[in-house]
Amino acid sequence: MSNKRAGVFVGSLRRGSYCKSIAKFVSSLAPNNFKMDMIDLSKLAMYNQDLDDDGNPPKEWTEFRAKVKPLDGCLFVTPEYNRSVPAVLKNALDVGSRPYGKNAWDGKAGGIISVSPGSLGAFGANHHLRQPMAFLNILMLQQPEAYIGNVASILNEKGEITSESTRQFLKNYMDAFVKWVDTISDMK
Amino acid sequence: MSNKRAGVFVGSLRRGSYCKSIAKFVSSLAPNNFKMDMIDLSKLAMYNQDLDDDGNPPKEWTEFRAKVKPLDGCLFVTPEYNRSVPAVLKNALDVGSRPYGKNAWDGKAGGIISVSPGSLGAFGANHHLRQPMAFLNILMLQQPEAYIGNVASILNEKGEITSESTRQFLKNYMDAFVKWVDTISDMK
Amino acid sequence: MSNKRAGVFVGSLRRGSYCKSIAKFVSSLAPNNFKMDMIDLSKLAMYNQDLDDDGNPPKEWTEFRAKVKPLDGCLFVTPEYNRSVPAVLKNALDVGSRPYGKNAWDGKAGGIISVSPGSLGAFGANHHLRQPMAFLNILMLQQPEAYIGNVASILNEKGEITSESTRQFLKNYMDAFVKWVDTISDMK
Amino acid sequence: MSNKRAGVFVGSLRRGSYCKSIAKFVSSLAPNNFKMDMIDLSKLAMYNQDLDDDGNPPKEWTEFRAKVKPLDGCLFVTPEYNRSVPAVLKNALDVGSRPYGKNAWDGKAGGIISVSPGSLGAFGANHHLRQPMAFLNILMLQQPEAYIGNVASILNEKGEITSESTRQFLKNYMDAFVKWVDTISDMK
Repeated sequence: MSNKRAGVFVGSLRRGSYCKSIAKFVSSLAPNNFKMDMIDLSKLAMYNQDLDDDGNPPKEWTEFRAKVKPLDGCLFVTPEYNRSVPAVLKNALDVGSRPYGKNAWDGKAGGIISVSPGSLGAFGANHHLRQPMAFLNILMLQQPEAYIGNVASILNEKGEITSESTRQFLKNYMDAFVKWVDTISDMK
Repeated sequence: MSNKRAGVFVGSLRRGSYCKSIAKFVSSLAPNNFKMDMIDLSKLAMYNQDLDDDGNPPKEWTEFRAKVKPLDGCLFVTPEYNRSVPAVLKNALDVGSRPYGKNAWDGKAGGIISVSPGSLGAFGANHHLRQPMAFLNILMLQQPEAYIGNVASILNEKGEITSESTRQFLKNYMDAFVKWVDTISDMK
Repeated sequence: MSNKRAGVFVGSLRRGSYCKSIAKFVSSLAPNNFKMDMIDLSKLAMYNQDLDDDGNPPKEWTEFRAKVKPLDGCLFVTPEYNRSVPAVLKNALDVGSRPYGKNAWDGKAGGIISVSPGSLGAFGANHHLRQPMAFLNILMLQQPEAYIGNVASILNEKGEITSESTRQFLKNYMDAFVKWVDTISDMK
Repeated sequence: MSNKRAGVFVGSLRRGSYCKSIAKFVSSLAPNNFKMDMIDLSKLAMYNQDLDDDGNPPKEWTEFRAKVKPLDGCLFVTPEYNRSVPAVLKNALDVGSRPYGKNAWDGKAGGIISVSPGSLGAFGANHHLRQPMAFLNILMLQQPEAYIGNVASILNEKGEITSESTRQFLKNYMDAFVKWVDTISDMK
């Protein structure tokens, strides 16, 4: 297996974001030849096609697109807001998909971990996030599905995962994700 | 029927937004005792719970919540971005739903018109938008469904609707929406 | 409030169906002037338009449509199969919606209780089931949402609910459902 | 590329099914070393777990599972019923996924073509069908998406496709599907 690189996209801006804790842990599990880059979404202005059409898009958009383009894989770690995807994550997808004909996500391998303080595991966010992937041509890992519910109970105050079964589950998840990125990037 | 008021929420920030044209037309159809307010979403910062928790939310959030609160109905006019809802509209839903326990949308009557330059009528945006409504307790008008496809072909350069059948369809839609707002607001 | 009648539609054919237990309990909670009819779905042949077009539909279809038609409300109690709605329930919706132009569900008040032995509460079934409701014009109760997870742990071997908090939750649900059926049926 | 085999699953039982016409055409496009088997769904009894638990499942279920098991790819050609998947197709997914622990779909490559006499292209069926795929571990081709709208206008009375652009689109679709099946089956 050659060197691969995945971006990690977190759908929460909170300082103490549970998703960031989970994202940090899974990033630490990547093998040596597999780089995981946490990609900041907080500076992306809300998508407005005029800014592209006027030929002067925000430099944060341009930089974001340039970061997404060379990736082999994309790992989305998302909370659920009101039974669906947080706007910050949907906006990142939209910014990266444009301008028309220059979809930066095209052909990448994708994975989703959804995270919730409640028991439903952010199912609504997890599956709503999959619908744009068809259009964006992000090829999705299916199993294992990753719904991390009751997340507050498995993190300590430093944001470290204290549940051994969750740690093991996430290790298995990362094994599958790494293999998936490898398969899809070699296909291109 | 007593006086009623609905907010109109448009999911596109483009100057020449097709959705704005459709929203403007349907607003003009409201009967005398039914007020339609176009509500600006462009100034709302991306939702971040820290800003509420710190006790100093952006004044645009506070103003937005105060505008939503007294409404009887909410009409969403949305384009589709990558088979789902534009971030600007999802963000508005999220901002209005918070802080925890103060959901400004609670118990209102809702309607959706989805608008697309393509033939699929923004089906993906229309139905993804319905999923949060269950949690937000926005009671949804079901019929007629409103998928406005090939929208560029029915607007002139001033953004006026030139298709008589679309004008008639939207009149029927507004009749149903007004009746629905009346039913739901009298239930409370 | 005048007399009202709701049908109860259960999406599982198993003898020991958890959904049937839940359906039975909520049916027992209806007030005196509100009738709840458990409607059998097990005899409905898979929908095939030819059978309607040939003018000789199965008598089980005809009887089912005749049972749905006079209802004021429809309560769906559904398990999740493979992250979506069981075929038996989708088939019932399809049979009741036809022949073209004779949608028996039109204008009724609807509610959904989703039931699962796992923790995710059959979220996928609950929300997939809502999408057809727009087309069928079943007006949906939104709150409270009802996701009954870990259901095996709250039923005894007779299928009775042993959890007081679940019993109370379902009482609150039925109060809201009864009020909703009343509102929607008086609107017609 | 070694020999591969895909099953074709059609979600309509109508004699004159548009989906069958489309399925027939795309099957004819498969290269020599790629076999496409039309798999009959009409005899599958509605899923009821009791029949598996009692140890005597219908022989049509057993035969169906045995047909699905050796496939490399699965192509679903589906109409839309009431904004979602027809029961006959959802039932086939459910029957093939059971008994527990013996999911016959596991690890296969999947594709969806949705077909509609209307303009919306059966978007609702196309995307609802994708949600179970995560659980079933059917790895999905994303692009090109295939929404065949206004289908009656592109078929002659023998069910042959008369539109050259649709024929070309479906050729491109099959090229992508064949390549996808190859990638996924070599991954195992």
